Amino acid sequence: MQNNRRTSSRQPAKKAAKAERKPKSVASPALPVRIAFLGGLNEVGKNMTLYEYGDDMFIVDCGLAFPDTEMLGVDLVIPDFTYVERNREKIRGIVITHGHEDHIGGLVYLLKTVNIPVYATRLTAGLIEGKLAEHGILNDVRINCIEAGDTIKLGQFEVEAIHVNHSIPDSVGLAIKSPAGVIIQTGDFKIDSTPIDGEIIDLARFSELGKQGVLCLLSDSTNAVRPGYTESEKKVGETFSDLFAKARGRRIIIATFASNIHRVQQIMNIAKDMGRKVALSGRSLEYVVEKAADLGYLNVPDNLLVSIDSVNNYPADKMVIITTGSQGEPMSALHRMAFSEHRRVSIIPNDYVIISATPIPGNEKTVGRVVDELLKLGAEVIYEKMYDVHVSGHACQEELKLMLGITKPKYFIPVHGEQKHLRRHSALAQSMGIPRSNIIIADNGKQVEITDNKISVVNEVPAGKVFVDGYGVGDVGSIVIRDRKRLSADGIIVVAVTLSQGLIVNGPEVITRGFVYVRENEELIETISSSCEKVINDCLYDGITDHNSIKNRIRDEASRLVYERTKRNPMILPIIMEV
Amino acid sequence: MQNNRRTSSRQPAKKAAKAERKPKSVASPALPVRIAFLGGLNEVGKNMTLYEYGDDMFIVDCGLAFPDTEMLGVDLVIPDFTYVERNREKIRGIVITHGHEDHIGGLVYLLKTVNIPVYATRLTAGLIEGKLAEHGILNDVRINCIEAGDTIKLGQFEVEAIHVNHSIPDSVGLAIKSPAGVIIQTGDFKIDSTPIDGEIIDLARFSELGKQGVLCLLSDSTNAVRPGYTESEKKVGETFSDLFAKARGRRIIIATFASNIHRVQQIMNIAKDMGRKVALSGRSLEYVVEKAADLGYLNVPDNLLVSIDSVNNYPADKMVIITTGSQGEPMSALHRMAFSEHRRVSIIPNDYVIISATPIPGNEKTVGRVVDELLKLGAEVIYEKMYDVHVSGHACQEELKLMLGITKPKYFIPVHGEQKHLRRHSALAQSMGIPRSNIIIADNGKQVEITDNKISVVNEVPAGKVFVDGYGVGDVGSIVIRDRKRLSADGIIVVAVTLSQGLIVNGPEVITRGFVYVRENEELIETISSSCEKVINDCLYDGITDHNSIKNRIRDEASRLVYERTKRNPMILPIIMEV
Repeated sequence: MQNNRRTSSRQPAKKAAKAERKPKSVASPALPVRIAFLGGLNEVGKNMTLYEYGDDMFIVDCGLAFPDTEMLGVDLVIPDFTYVERNREKIRGIVITHGHEDHIGGLVYLLKTVNIPVYATRLTAGLIEGKLAEHGILNDVRINCIEAGDTIKLGQFEVEAIHVNHSIPDSVGLAIKSPAGVIIQTGDFKIDSTPIDGEIIDLARFSELGKQGVLCLLSDSTNAVRPGYTESEKKVGETFSDLFAKARGRRIIIATFASNIHRVQQIMNIAKDMGRKVALSGRSLEYVVEKAADLGYLNVPDNLLVSIDSVNNYPADKMVIITTGSQGEPMSALHRMAFSEHRRVSIIPNDYVIISATPIPGNEKTVGRVVDELLKLGAEVIYEKMYDVHVSGHACQEELKLMLGITKPKYFIPVHGEQKHLRRHSALAQSMGIPRSNIIIADNGKQVEITDNKISVVNEVPAGKVFVDGYGVGDVGSIVIRDRKRLSADGIIVVAVTLSQGLIVNGPEVITRGFVYVRENEELIETISSSCEKVINDCLYDGITDHNSIKNRIRDEASRLVYERTKRNPMILPIIMEV
Repeated sequence: MQNNRRTSSRQPAKKAAKAERKPKSVASPALPVRIAFLGGLNEVGKNMTLYEYGDDMFIVDCGLAFPDTEMLGVDLVIPDFTYVERNREKIRGIVITHGHEDHIGGLVYLLKTVNIPVYATRLTAGLIEGKLAEHGILNDVRINCIEAGDTIKLGQFEVEAIHVNHSIPDSVGLAIKSPAGVIIQTGDFKIDSTPIDGEIIDLARFSELGKQGVLCLLSDSTNAVRPGYTESEKKVGETFSDLFAKARGRRIIIATFASNIHRVQQIMNIAKDMGRKVALSGRSLEYVVEKAADLGYLNVPDNLLVSIDSVNNYPADKMVIITTGSQGEPMSALHRMAFSEHRRVSIIPNDYVIISATPIPGNEKTVGRVVDELLKLGAEVIYEKMYDVHVSGHACQEELKLMLGITKPKYFIPVHGEQKHLRRHSALAQSMGIPRSNIIIADNGKQVEITDNKISVVNEVPAGKVFVDGYGVGDVGSIVIRDRKRLSADGIIVVAVTLSQGLIVNGPEVITRGFVYVRENEELIETISSSCEKVINDCLYDGITDHNSIKNRIRDEASRLVYERTKRNPMILPIIMEV
């Protein structure tokens, strides 16, 4: 850990909370608080939120999104930092709720733009440090390690971290205190009465704040359409125990999210009890396991772990392989196993494969294909809802109602979700007695203002998607993507010609890539060449020597010809060289 | 209808069936029957099946599949006709089970390859004729109209059509009789006791065949993982009645599959009862409705239909718009409405939108985005499982067991499904007493042989995916797709140079498309140009004049440079002109 200075102990945290009790009693009338939703693709208010009071601002989370299939060649999508840069003087820091990519993945890019202090719990900080080191900026950044119960002072804001349950340890919600009142942002959360690390979400603290008066609640809407309660992570362990018994005499392979440390812990414990060794496959998994073990969040039993390289030295029925790829990702370890491309692990008949995850919307097909290939190789595959091999990390309706019930907010902003989730969460809040006029269904790029007697959208702020492609941030935008789309659909035809003193001296040469097999269309290529030759000669004859004009003519002629003959629309790129 | 000659009446059909009773009593010992699975992407035995007995062959169905996201620029995927062409002399015809795209969509391409007679029921034939006309080959093709109960003679095969329920009218299963015995191919089916057209699946005939002895059953596995029964289509009508009542005073927009004529019928009936007009939006929907009405499969009440162009002339609460786009397809009518790009229909607050379909795996995200946009525009949206607005067209486990129970096949091949479906269907069959050794889980490209005492995979036949892109069939293959993938990921960099007598006289000019904004990387482009210039000069100095060698050096140099600076891998296309 680089900067392990504890900002405050538990005592001041409570004091601060008490000081907030009657915000209206302070001398000057409170200013409004503004909340800007800067991140996210489809999910509103997920990846990055900016709070503003007077001249003080701070940020909550800075995550990434994974590109949609239309965002060709894009590696990652991060929030737009324009509004942050514009206000760089006012920003006092960034508080991170937990260590998932959609909450920390944009942070390195943000910190390269504005170097502000980072506040995060220990595991989260550990995961962030790994990223900073990878980008070579670890020594430039101030990371402040906090723990649940701590309060951070950020200008006129005081931000208290509150322990919550989620699918990664050390997650916190936030109580954000300013002269205008207390705002609670739950972060990603669920209520788990039997969590693996023994600590239940701090409902007492949320209730206490509720009794003191909460101005506004921002709450996780991911599962707002699901009735009931989310099952405890412990349930998955029970299922694993049963499945391990069923799989006696066979190799077990379990795919799960790298960051679900509690699940990895449960698998390790059961493996040990059953006298099996555990091997890890997948870079992110190996990294997270090492980090979590180092920091004491994962207890790896002695002599349990073996290298994936030595996996074939052990009898199949003495092995458990934990792997990445539960979403069917093409480069992941499980995908490589399924398509017989894994360096070390060849699927053998009777392998017992458990996919311990639910496909994220959009991934159903890729997951399905991996399952199919595994089945063809003779493995037994446990997937989807066949057994309780996965539980969500997010609260369902009854938990959401409980959170609304104990925090008793005056205003409510459902966040983390698509419109359908936000609307359902709004309906839940209304069923709990919050009037519709006190609820804002926001969108990315909206800035919401809260005063003592009003909540409203007051502003639009820049919150577009910024594409990261290779080392480039933001240099791939809509024009480049549009070109890539066209290239991907029908390829490119280059028409190159050399002119000299108003005459063609070489070409037009026609070269295609990604269009059709040239062999099949030699005659078409010939025709394009001779038609373009004619067009160019006509231009030259008419005294048109401007390259752009000639290029336009070539483009028109080639496009027309190709579309007529093939019904395709490749990109046409004319090149004119003059000697 | 072009050739409406009824091949046989019901009487001969029954005789033929009786003649089959003791296939072993015929003089010469029966040859094996072979079944080749020629079509399909992930679904096995779906799009095209070829039956072979001695020197006689015939085909069942010839459908298309829609491309996966990796099949860049591909419009459609059709079966590989290599095996058909190789045996063109033996093929007696093709029998179509029903009019869905995945069963008829490849037919025009097949018929352009081998002109064989087509056998289809009346509605199916009508839909096929539309496609033939579109491709200008209607007059070249022999379509024979059949109806359920008819038997077709195809060489030594006799094929009897049996009425089944499905999500399009006029669907049939097939009893395929040869001296080797009777094989039943169910086609897509469900058991609907209250179908909209009044006719229940002909269970009596399936039972009768079962009593006479069925050698092998090929049955629809689409819903083999779902327990229980599939609900009747009538259920959807009941739901619509309730929802129309809820939507009183508001405009109703319903998205559904164009081919689900019974659903369209129900919507029209309810609209009429409620005093609403109906407008259609979506080319395929308009086409199918017109065709179905012409052929008497759809009863359009008088004065009900109005043009989509006049939709704004009617009060919103007097309109129902039926539209395509239930899968969120980007060019569909519903998508255009959601993204405010529809020429005639602007979504207004309180519009009541019903998506009467379940997302096909892979489409969840696109459907979700359409729902999100509709919600943002203020519409109320009924989707997914909020109400019973959709029922499947395929049999669930109890129906599948019933089919197995009444046909009592000796051998069983689960078809129409991914491996997970086929395996579950196999397990169902085993639970019904069919030994595992009598079941084949096939794959596309496998040829299965059935004799009186054995079923086995005997052969591999060509069954790759053939891509249709524009007018081109099969001229886009793996190399072109690989190029398109590369182009789509990082774009292309063209390095063009003109040489004359061993010297550079123009260039190298560096042009990029789909790479990055040039403005952002002017310096990089400069560097590529000057480095390539040096490489070319080095070549020329060393006496290397072979263009391919110089091109390779340019490619290596530019790739290395670009990757080093940007971590990207654009395609590099060197062009050398000599004057």
